[in-house]
Amino acid sequence: MIAMGSKKRRGILERLNAGEVVVGDGGYVMQLERRGYVKAGHWTPEAAVEHPEAVRQLHREFLRAGANVLQTFTFYCSEDKLEISGNVTNITGAQINEAACDLAREVANEDDALVAGCVSKTPCYVKSHSEAEVKAIFKKQMDDFLKKDIDFFIVEFVDHVEEAGWAVEVLKTSGKPVGATLCISPHGDMHGVPPGECAVRLVKAGADIVGVNCHLDPLTCIRTVKLMKEGLEKAGLKAHLMIQPLGFHTPECNLGGYTSLPEYPFAMETRAITRWDIHKYAREAYNAGIRYIGGCCGFEPYHIRAIAEELAAERGFLPPASEKHGLWGAALEMHTKPWVRARARREYWENLLPASGRPKCPSMATPEDDYEKQLKSNIPT
Amino acid sequence: MIAMGSKKRRGILERLNAGEVVVGDGGYVMQLERRGYVKAGHWTPEAAVEHPEAVRQLHREFLRAGANVLQTFTFYCSEDKLEISGNVTNITGAQINEAACDLAREVANEDDALVAGCVSKTPCYVKSHSEAEVKAIFKKQMDDFLKKDIDFFIVEFVDHVEEAGWAVEVLKTSGKPVGATLCISPHGDMHGVPPGECAVRLVKAGADIVGVNCHLDPLTCIRTVKLMKEGLEKAGLKAHLMIQPLGFHTPECNLGGYTSLPEYPFAMETRAITRWDIHKYAREAYNAGIRYIGGCCGFEPYHIRAIAEELAAERGFLPPASEKHGLWGAALEMHTKPWVRARARREYWENLLPASGRPKCPSMATPEDDYEKQLKSNIPT
Amino acid sequence: MIAMGSKKRRGILERLNAGEVVVGDGGYVMQLERRGYVKAGHWTPEAAVEHPEAVRQLHREFLRAGANVLQTFTFYCSEDKLEISGNVTNITGAQINEAACDLAREVANEDDALVAGCVSKTPCYVKSHSEAEVKAIFKKQMDDFLKKDIDFFIVEFVDHVEEAGWAVEVLKTSGKPVGATLCISPHGDMHGVPPGECAVRLVKAGADIVGVNCHLDPLTCIRTVKLMKEGLEKAGLKAHLMIQPLGFHTPECNLGGYTSLPEYPFAMETRAITRWDIHKYAREAYNAGIRYIGGCCGFEPYHIRAIAEELAAERGFLPPASEKHGLWGAALEMHTKPWVRARARREYWENLLPASGRPKCPSMATPEDDYEKQLKSNIPT
Amino acid sequence: MIAMGSKKRRGILERLNAGEVVVGDGGYVMQLERRGYVKAGHWTPEAAVEHPEAVRQLHREFLRAGANVLQTFTFYCSEDKLEISGNVTNITGAQINEAACDLAREVANEDDALVAGCVSKTPCYVKSHSEAEVKAIFKKQMDDFLKKDIDFFIVEFVDHVEEAGWAVEVLKTSGKPVGATLCISPHGDMHGVPPGECAVRLVKAGADIVGVNCHLDPLTCIRTVKLMKEGLEKAGLKAHLMIQPLGFHTPECNLGGYTSLPEYPFAMETRAITRWDIHKYAREAYNAGIRYIGGCCGFEPYHIRAIAEELAAERGFLPPASEKHGLWGAALEMHTKPWVRARARREYWENLLPASGRPKCPSMATPEDDYEKQLKSNIPT
Repeated sequence: MIAMGSKKRRGILERLNAGEVVVGDGGYVMQLERRGYVKAGHWTPEAAVEHPEAVRQLHREFLRAGANVLQTFTFYCSEDKLEISGNVTNITGAQINEAACDLAREVANEDDALVAGCVSKTPCYVKSHSEAEVKAIFKKQMDDFLKKDIDFFIVEFVDHVEEAGWAVEVLKTSGKPVGATLCISPHGDMHGVPPGECAVRLVKAGADIVGVNCHLDPLTCIRTVKLMKEGLEKAGLKAHLMIQPLGFHTPECNLGGYTSLPEYPFAMETRAITRWDIHKYAREAYNAGIRYIGGCCGFEPYHIRAIAEELAAERGFLPPASEKHGLWGAALEMHTKPWVRARARREYWENLLPASGRPKCPSMATPEDDYEKQLKSNIPT
Repeated sequence: MIAMGSKKRRGILERLNAGEVVVGDGGYVMQLERRGYVKAGHWTPEAAVEHPEAVRQLHREFLRAGANVLQTFTFYCSEDKLEISGNVTNITGAQINEAACDLAREVANEDDALVAGCVSKTPCYVKSHSEAEVKAIFKKQMDDFLKKDIDFFIVEFVDHVEEAGWAVEVLKTSGKPVGATLCISPHGDMHGVPPGECAVRLVKAGADIVGVNCHLDPLTCIRTVKLMKEGLEKAGLKAHLMIQPLGFHTPECNLGGYTSLPEYPFAMETRAITRWDIHKYAREAYNAGIRYIGGCCGFEPYHIRAIAEELAAERGFLPPASEKHGLWGAALEMHTKPWVRARARREYWENLLPASGRPKCPSMATPEDDYEKQLKSNIPT
Repeated sequence: MIAMGSKKRRGILERLNAGEVVVGDGGYVMQLERRGYVKAGHWTPEAAVEHPEAVRQLHREFLRAGANVLQTFTFYCSEDKLEISGNVTNITGAQINEAACDLAREVANEDDALVAGCVSKTPCYVKSHSEAEVKAIFKKQMDDFLKKDIDFFIVEFVDHVEEAGWAVEVLKTSGKPVGATLCISPHGDMHGVPPGECAVRLVKAGADIVGVNCHLDPLTCIRTVKLMKEGLEKAGLKAHLMIQPLGFHTPECNLGGYTSLPEYPFAMETRAITRWDIHKYAREAYNAGIRYIGGCCGFEPYHIRAIAEELAAERGFLPPASEKHGLWGAALEMHTKPWVRARARREYWENLLPASGRPKCPSMATPEDDYEKQLKSNIPT
Repeated sequence: MIAMGSKKRRGILERLNAGEVVVGDGGYVMQLERRGYVKAGHWTPEAAVEHPEAVRQLHREFLRAGANVLQTFTFYCSEDKLEISGNVTNITGAQINEAACDLAREVANEDDALVAGCVSKTPCYVKSHSEAEVKAIFKKQMDDFLKKDIDFFIVEFVDHVEEAGWAVEVLKTSGKPVGATLCISPHGDMHGVPPGECAVRLVKAGADIVGVNCHLDPLTCIRTVKLMKEGLEKAGLKAHLMIQPLGFHTPECNLGGYTSLPEYPFAMETRAITRWDIHKYAREAYNAGIRYIGGCCGFEPYHIRAIAEELAAERGFLPPASEKHGLWGAALEMHTKPWVRARARREYWENLLPASGRPKCPSMATPEDDYEKQLKSNIPT
């Protein structure tokens, strides 16, 4: 059934409290880099002002794929980051933030999706380590967002729980719900704070939803969120769980994150996850008790659709984009080649081990940071 | 915009005769499948009517990436194919063809790009093998196109040179230039006609531009076009050369084409070519004397940009999308991690052998058709 | 310098107490399987009686490669195991044990090597779990050995520390030194006893030398021995350390051991370690404080030579077989092909990542036991 | 012994003329290098004098594995080669040749095997290109052999058919049968003479048996021998066919030979063929009409046994070493682990794609010689 129908816009907590699955959107900056609108290395979101049609279209594709939330295209859109990148000379952060809110709202209203105003880590944190300065930056972004019609906030892509906690504290002053996702591994944040404790701190700071995003592959991110969940349970705290992992296979860098891979950022193609990898991810995330399930860098619209298709029974409907997708390859049944027709079934795709087509390339690379040393230290003594 | 400047719209032959490099666009159906608008297995282009904004945006991205030609989104848009696919019940082929022409024209006019009306192989050919019936189908499509403002025609994705020749003969009656690309290997078409002879037949049928598209990887397609060139030279004929290969590494299937790979069509991610692979491809194509250089399935906007960047000196300008791209990774110079900064140079990316991130997956698969048997028969005796 | 010279036969503890490096021998059963004298699956050593010339020759090759100890070819030579295997009908365990002692002694005396009488795990342990019965089996083997001229005992290839402890207790009644190596991972024995505690129990049972052998690859075995060392240090105990790992790369099975790999036992070729892998292994083992360094299944004579070559400076001499080996490929300097001559240097071989020559084969397999589940449970919570 | 029975020593041509399968032996120099008796880079056979027990034992293992012919261990044993290598200072070529004949004879007589006196290419050929000088060298070796009891001659490892022809002409003066194997690819010898023509020249020079050995993997060598067979048929000539390929997977170097691989000679482990690869090879060789089937570098005794086991029905008996080998893994039926027991069947091993255990290593390497350029030139134009 393709039925978006008459559901009306309810808040993020209303949905999660009701036990609904909330499908997140995918990654904007890497996808818009490939489409020609974002500069890798800078990763700033000035396209919201310069090329709104491109941002609008990607929002639409995620919505059509089943996303219940559209995040504002405001990654790295703090004034200090924009200044460092030097990529935008005549556009202010406020202009971008406001334009991005309008774009997300416009598209979200084409269905009953929610808009999340997003902030990410600031250069200021590492440079100054000043709570006042960092909070002032988040406050400025929040004020931009509050001029517009957003539903809740997301703090994302922060690798120090301390900075994320400050962001949560600022955003909670708005009275809106706040989600917070760290880009950390099962081994904890950049100061060594374990995931369970990170979750506790974020909830104590006021976060309604906690989890992880980016930097690590889907199954590793699930492990981290499980550790967060356990930490919360031990502390007697409650929060909704959220996950938006990388759309790449990155087994070598599950401590340091994908920037340590030799392929980052311009040769990640080989590592891209398939829609079938997503089915497995979505099911495992659901089984782990996570109810806000989306993606980050590498997640394209068809990956988001695969989340929505895997969880169609739980959600009660398929997304609009499934009009153009036979479940588990069913549409191949009409192919002219008999061997392609034979692929119109779940078992085929679930068990396929795809070849790289690159006989001179290895399966795994050596990350830049000394992962192996860290791994050894991980054996209990 | 980087120096697109004052060039005015000149015809495709005018450009090629002047020795200019013409950059083609990339693949529409696979990219729009991932964006949620095309059904794999059917691969029909009803989105031109149903979701014009999605088609328009992809046109724009290819234009921005440097394409000089936008192909109408009319793949498989013959009435007999649409009927078989059963994917579109209330939209006629004529509606799609006309809408697609308008979309391509609208975007092409945002710069000085040309619009090519495209026809592809018909189910009718294999079924009836009737010249009259097949030509009637091509005539009908041509008539749709001629109601609109297109610049020239492309016959593409035909694996029997006989059918392609019929299409050329029909389209030449329009008085417009005609390009023809076969989806064949260096071993020839489906009837065993070698590439050199295929080229001769197409030119004798009236084609102004000949070459190959889809089905095979870039370097293999170059080999095929070289064989076409040699065939033309031996026959004392002249034509422009064109190439629009797959954007995937497919070393195993260079006879049968990528539909014979186990990964087709839903697990091709691992095989995707990088922008650096494209640099090599564009240079080799140029060196082989090919001047119409584009892509087919798997070519995304950033791949087209890479063609334009590799041939920037020859063309005299960079494409608009290079505003958001440091050449050879130059924009990484400002990255916070020292090891990522060290990647801001050509040597790094040219020599990288990207890892798949999938230790349980092989490098090569076994294609469905008996490639190895064919390979063995290829040893001179 | 190739100088075995005038060193006279000193005991194993005398050597280790003096801080000398003792080079062990390699794997007998897998190598003799390939030579045609041992049946895979049974792995029993009746060749000591049936084909003494084959066993003698392999002893000689290990001696010539630099081994200071020759282990009697008595693997699985307990009566209960021989009976189960059914491979030998007319030869008794005592006959094999005695013949094997004579063979080892004969060859050891060609230089100043030592002979170690070896016992391995018994089927009786798992079946009966009776200390009396198991000890009686070890006592019987010991009595066979004591009829002959052996220098010390080795208990090897035991995966329950309890059984190994019983063996040590029996063998210590002989008054001879006893070494004990378990085939366990860094995660401990089959009852979950961690390596550190295993080492403590073995030393308390009377073992003079403790360590690991077989089942896991060299670098993993070093990790396990390090954990043993730490356990002994914490307990205030002292013992010499010993290591005789697999000669295969087995990254997937470092909990369950190589019998869980799909390639075991008849397709392990691809995983074989090179002599250059051995250099790294020998150095790391030495740096970890291990002084009895040899190999098990997969270690051929040239692997043992590589240990002796890596530690030539520490030992003060090269082994006889180095007469036929240029260090780090030096003998390639006289090759006719210039590119092979260019390989006559350490950097070349140290940095080489050898290709498998099998494009359809993966890098890693899925072991039979549920390694991944175990791995996940290994993340600290 | 399993049914070697009462066959008495009959000549090589007697056997081949009767349509029997003759199983050859495996590679001596690489195996004895690993055992510590041959120096890689030199590859000279002085061990026949220095360490006769080692050569004798390897002969015995090949005999036991099913070999009907033992080749004298006289590779590269021409005076000019020995001088260049400088590896042997006080032993003459004649001493080695004679000792090697005695060793082969001694072991061959333990069953009814034949002894083949072997000569290989001379440095003199490339240096002087003098027929007289080269023939004098072969004459000298032949005279050494004729002092001893050998059954026939083999010319092997020659990559110019001209030199091989000269050797055949010399050896035919002895009145004994002569076999000649070139180390060439399907593309012909080093002067570009195609395999078919090479075979014709060798037979015209007097060879009774022709084929290929070394340098290329088994299936490629079969292709070359097939081309030889076709050449002979076209010329109306008759000869027996022989094959002794590499025991390594070398898909990249099937023109230039394995010395062009980066792994040559000290990291070839990963490429070693399994016994199951041999079954396929032996069957295909037999089906191609080849009746003298053995191996060269990389073939160990168990590979020779696999030839004998695959062709047991055709030969009527199993080799002695099959006493210690369950066909197709049958002996695993008694293994303690259920999943290993499940491997006691042909289908398991025939379909296994063994993993390399090396995630950072690729599947294929780049050979030193420009294989790809050669490959491209191979496409028909």
